[in-house]
Amino acid sequence: MTVEGRAAEEPGGRGPSGDRSRIARRALLGAGGAAAALAAGGAVLTTSGAGARGPAAVIPFHGPYQAGILTRRQPYAHLAALDLGPEADRARAAALLRAWTGAAARMSRGEPPAAACPGADGDTGDTGVALGAGPASLTATFGFGAGLFDRLGLAPARPEALAPLPDFPDDRLDPARSGGDLFVQIGADDPFAAVHALRTLQRLARGTARTRWVMSGFTRPPAGAPSPAASGTHRNPMGQLDGTANPAPGEDPAQRARILVTGSDAPPWLTGGSYVVVRRIRMLLDTWEGLPVHHREEAVGRRVTDGAPLTGGTERTPVDLEAARPDGIPVIAANAHIRLAAPRTNAGATMLRRGWSYYDGLRPDGAPDAGLLFVAWQADPRTGFVPVQRRLARGDALARYTEHEASALFAVAGGVAPGEYVGQRLLEG
Amino acid sequence: MTVEGRAAEEPGGRGPSGDRSRIARRALLGAGGAAAALAAGGAVLTTSGAGARGPAAVIPFHGPYQAGILTRRQPYAHLAALDLGPEADRARAAALLRAWTGAAARMSRGEPPAAACPGADGDTGDTGVALGAGPASLTATFGFGAGLFDRLGLAPARPEALAPLPDFPDDRLDPARSGGDLFVQIGADDPFAAVHALRTLQRLARGTARTRWVMSGFTRPPAGAPSPAASGTHRNPMGQLDGTANPAPGEDPAQRARILVTGSDAPPWLTGGSYVVVRRIRMLLDTWEGLPVHHREEAVGRRVTDGAPLTGGTERTPVDLEAARPDGIPVIAANAHIRLAAPRTNAGATMLRRGWSYYDGLRPDGAPDAGLLFVAWQADPRTGFVPVQRRLARGDALARYTEHEASALFAVAGGVAPGEYVGQRLLEG
Ligand code: HEM
Ligand code: HEM
Repeated sequence: MTVEGRAAEEPGGRGPSGDRSRIARRALLGAGGAAAALAAGGAVLTTSGAGARGPAAVIPFHGPYQAGILTRRQPYAHLAALDLGPEADRARAAALLRAWTGAAARMSRGEPPAAACPGADGDTGDTGVALGAGPASLTATFGFGAGLFDRLGLAPARPEALAPLPDFPDDRLDPARSGGDLFVQIGADDPFAAVHALRTLQRLARGTARTRWVMSGFTRPPAGAPSPAASGTHRNPMGQLDGTANPAPGEDPAQRARILVTGSDAPPWLTGGSYVVVRRIRMLLDTWEGLPVHHREEAVGRRVTDGAPLTGGTERTPVDLEAARPDGIPVIAANAHIRLAAPRTNAGATMLRRGWSYYDGLRPDGAPDAGLLFVAWQADPRTGFVPVQRRLARGDALARYTEHEASALFAVAGGVAPGEYVGQRLLEG
Repeated sequence: MTVEGRAAEEPGGRGPSGDRSRIARRALLGAGGAAAALAAGGAVLTTSGAGARGPAAVIPFHGPYQAGILTRRQPYAHLAALDLGPEADRARAAALLRAWTGAAARMSRGEPPAAACPGADGDTGDTGVALGAGPASLTATFGFGAGLFDRLGLAPARPEALAPLPDFPDDRLDPARSGGDLFVQIGADDPFAAVHALRTLQRLARGTARTRWVMSGFTRPPAGAPSPAASGTHRNPMGQLDGTANPAPGEDPAQRARILVTGSDAPPWLTGGSYVVVRRIRMLLDTWEGLPVHHREEAVGRRVTDGAPLTGGTERTPVDLEAARPDGIPVIAANAHIRLAAPRTNAGATMLRRGWSYYDGLRPDGAPDAGLLFVAWQADPRTGFVPVQRRLARGDALARYTEHEASALFAVAGGVAPGEYVGQRLLEG
């Protein structure tokens, strides 16, 4: 029974003592694990991002950054956007964020969210759907859409970077599943812990915000290969190992500055925060699966089996974009996804891709409704997602087999200290 | 590294030697586990249905019954129905079932389905989406709808029990997601193994059958409580422990005779088979979650926390349907789900409920598209599902919070011997 430490990713944060140990101990007891805690001699805090997983694993909610950005991707995820209702003013929005914060912190520890939502008759309003699931590495990460600032009279506080994303060629966006005033990303090792968190946050929003869209995804590291932190590689529904070239912002402060807002000129509420781009990208699997393997590998620039670049080596071998075959043709094709997406061909544009796969059955046309819930984190979308997607939309070999169906951009507040609520420095700033 | 034995559930079957050991050994090697196999001194066959789980676990495809009926429910499932195309005759249907059988047997062992689907250029047509997932307890279970018998000139062979289910009051069935000529139930411990199996079987069907519907579900036993065989209890999205009073056909031959077709008058292809009723039952969670806990518990007749009957004890304590409170009111309400559904109030009607939860985001009306993929197995639906559902539809307290959206009934052929294909004795009989 272990608690996933965020220590490795938080050089500036509190160490694995104090608050964190208390949280860990409470989680152990909350998960009914008193005996196990004794057996283990207390909570074990791993210091690497690879961390623990499973029912008893805890990812602390509080810290300098919100959980769910630099922490390991969990196998179950729900992404949801909500719109503020006509009656929502700043006070109600603050009350909602306070309630969400309390419930999320408690659920992350494996405790019922009860205190945050007492019913008329003292009932908790909790069906117990997550009973026995344990904390299950639950994370809930909160963000704000551009509309929230206007609705709450906070337009002057809206960061310039939170402007609508540009249109890209071939986008086929469904407005009903795009945008939104409030964003929640939920991840967990257990499907019922994840559903419970989503339902709880939706219930707490009643009267203040209406759910606009929900998308649900999954992932799973290859057997026997625990995924290292957020940047771990998992397969996606196209069959590729996805995430190989991700930055490692948990370990490298220079990379962290590209993923998290760290500049001293940033507003306090956004410091330690980030911008998240969410795109629902459907994969045209009926076509893709009919392609010969060499075509599929050339479209990406990496091998299917082990994710090694076509220029050789293993998954972690750096790709050689200059390498050419004897006939002069580049080994990594001119339109290969990893060539067009690489930071070096995009003036350093870097983002942390931390998405989930989805498989939602059949579309009315009989094609599979499957693809990637693409979730990318960056310190500024104008120098992160936007230039890369501009280039991909123009010529990416992979893009022929995908369709962007929904899009959203949110500013994600910095981490939450105990006693504080998420976004407090924005709403009361 | 272990192989889940079906021995306990198959007293009449072959023992854990011979074929099964060979299968196990191949699976170990197929999963790249040669070293592990040596370390373990060969395959470990557990004899209890609780069995192994995880990437390396194998549920043997061959045996006297199809896998996926008496075996443990896996966390990931896809249910799919396909319709035979106009060009499908008995020979093509047989070829499809032969290809499905080969691919399912191989994938169950963690091997690529390749031999079953060679492409034009020797390509396997496999994207590798399940590479590294391991066998992951994959099962694929095949059934036949009434329409198949007519389409293939097999009407005389269609069992009487395979008649359309009656209409029930309050059914709101969507024909597009109901019925079908062919049924596949896929379960696995890994989401990519499950998606891979579904896509592979769909690809093999091209030119012969078109997918009619796909539904995807999940489950997860409470932390620390490995689910015993098929009858394990898991929570469902309403928060209840679901599966408690299931029969144990793996252990009790009398109960097995109610779940599997065992009579000597049964056609050979159906012997060891079963009938499966599939119902997509949406839960009206927005209403349900607002009810006080006592109301939620009375609707079922069991406690939320531990599933114990309201007449006391623990989850496995038999319910006392006669018990009354001092004021004479029965402890288990007259309309409680477990009273109306119990075999003793339905002339012994018994079925094995082995469904999955689903959570598919939001409906257009903003309500959650969540519920139960109800999957019930019985030797005869006319003395299994039908009388119970008749009674439930009339007065079940729980039914007020659910809506039956899709329905199907399939006859499921008996188990497959090596060298044989599923349904062979029907198509060539
Ligand atoms: C369904 C759509 C997509 C699929 C299947 C996909 C798949 C992949 C794969 C297999 C790789 C190589 C392994 C890795 O480094 O992760 C990769 C790399 C990458 N992708 Fe994507 N991708 C998709 C969409 C996008 C989008 C929309 C963006 C950003 C606009 C993007 C940005 C990147 C970047 C930056 C890399 C790393 C390139 C490098 O530095 O080598 N991808 N992607
Ligand atoms: C969303 C719909 C349903 C829900 C949430 C549900 C839930 C439950 C729960 C919580 C139990 C008690 C624990 C257990 O023994 O598993 C139960 C028992 C049972 N249910 Fe359901 N059920 C649903 C639909 C159905 C349907 C459609 C049928 C059959 C027509 C059915 C047949 C049974 C039976 C036979 C029992 C065992 C009764 C006993 O012998 O004690 N259920 N169900």
